[in-house]
Amino acid sequence: MNLTLEQAEKIISKAKKKALAIDTKMNISVVDAGANQVAFVRMDGAWLGSADIALKKAKTARFFDMPTGEIGKLSQPGESLYNIEHSNGGLITFPGGLPIKDKAGNIIGAIGVSGSSVENDHAVAEAGATSL
Amino acid sequence: MNLTLEQAEKIISKAKKKALAIDTKMNISVVDAGANQVAFVRMDGAWLGSADIALKKAKTARFFDMPTGEIGKLSQPGESLYNIEHSNGGLITFPGGLPIKDKAGNIIGAIGVSGSSVENDHAVAEAGATSL
Amino acid sequence: MNLTLEQAEKIISKAKKKALAIDTKMNISVVDAGANQVAFVRMDGAWLGSADIALKKAKTARFFDMPTGEIGKLSQPGESLYNIEHSNGGLITFPGGLPIKDKAGNIIGAIGVSGSSVENDHAVAEAGATSL
Amino acid sequence: MNLTLEQAEKIISKAKKKALAIDTKMNISVVDAGANQVAFVRMDGAWLGSADIALKKAKTARFFDMPTGEIGKLSQPGESLYNIEHSNGGLITFPGGLPIKDKAGNIIGAIGVSGSSVENDHAVAEAGATSL
Repeated sequence: MNLTLEQAEKIISKAKKKALAIDTKMNISVVDAGANQVAFVRMDGAWLGSADIALKKAKTARFFDMPTGEIGKLSQPGESLYNIEHSNGGLITFPGGLPIKDKAGNIIGAIGVSGSSVENDHAVAEAGATSL
Repeated sequence: MNLTLEQAEKIISKAKKKALAIDTKMNISVVDAGANQVAFVRMDGAWLGSADIALKKAKTARFFDMPTGEIGKLSQPGESLYNIEHSNGGLITFPGGLPIKDKAGNIIGAIGVSGSSVENDHAVAEAGATSL
Repeated sequence: MNLTLEQAEKIISKAKKKALAIDTKMNISVVDAGANQVAFVRMDGAWLGSADIALKKAKTARFFDMPTGEIGKLSQPGESLYNIEHSNGGLITFPGGLPIKDKAGNIIGAIGVSGSSVENDHAVAEAGATSL
Repeated sequence: MNLTLEQAEKIISKAKKKALAIDTKMNISVVDAGANQVAFVRMDGAWLGSADIALKKAKTARFFDMPTGEIGKLSQPGESLYNIEHSNGGLITFPGGLPIKDKAGNIIGAIGVSGSSVENDHAVAEAGATSL
């Protein structure tokens, strides 16, 4: 069960639409079930440094099958997963990455969004992740 | 002067069309004048390992403002740029990467294509690069 | 004095049995006295991102000959080993990594487990580490 | 369609048997369809440096869905894929890596073997790859 390019393009299209609706400029990455990138876009004027963050958020969400922000709560000083970000060539654990499920509920990939506040990043990721 | 996402999407659309026309499955990457990725797609069933190669071809073409295959001739044993591939976190110097110019002839980015023979990769890159 | 593959396989077998007994899906890595990986398994459905974490836990436990969780206490903000995770290509310092000793008490390797809560990870690592 | 741990363990078992039969000491890695490692063993006394090579051979075979040695023919000086090894964080393109197919012929993963001559590495990989 894997995400197709057609699905990834639909996800990115919905995410972009949301990004425009809330007046933001985003980097958006979609990975498949194997955590390999399927599609990516950087909107005009979006932060250059957010391209890698978008990809790392997508990978992180698939690596652990949960929203990146959930991991971030556990990776704080004193918490159980402190400094987990040092694994896998670098994780990003603040909000903006979400698993993507098919209609049967199987995880088939993930989306990562970066370019604004983490609230906005999350909102755009959600618009994409729920579009299938 | 920089390539827009709309231009990158048009370039990728044309490249994908060419890839389908010659019955290949490609990874296609477009970078801007700063050699930063603007858009990427991996067609269903395309080689996983070609995603990084497509990006590296696009970057290499913009790093030196020439087709990747031209650099590859000079990076052979005994030639003037022998093993230049060790720079910049890894270059790919065989065909499939091309600079992208605007109508005035200014280089505004580059395309990298990987997933088939280098002849096919080059043909698909050319279809993309000449689409503006 | 070094851990053999036969020992590593026994350790992993016991750890897997424990993982199943507590209804978890784990990545399990065993390294030898030189901190080099001897054996690794990822149970079906276990988190993809936990493979690297399991290996890094095993290495970390052998690098400093103590449970990873002990190092994690010292790597917190304000503590003596703050951000030690930046060394050695990335350490993981929360629980789930344990040194492995032979009957004479000599350290002959380490085990790293990742895939659930740190309590579960530690319990599975302990089942493996004490199996010789 | 993905390789299970049970299948990976069977593949490694057969490969190890072959390695013993031809009096070699091997590192053996199995990755799934997403090129993520499922299982790994280093036989007692096998070269330490071959662990990473075995993994890179397995990944390379899945990245391009062909035997690693086939890529190595094309990556020689003057050939079409010269220095492709610089991609994907390092490829290994000499023999010893093979795709693994299910009974229907779908590629579900790959095996990488390193520790002896490339002929022996390939023979052991083949014993594993054909065991399902």
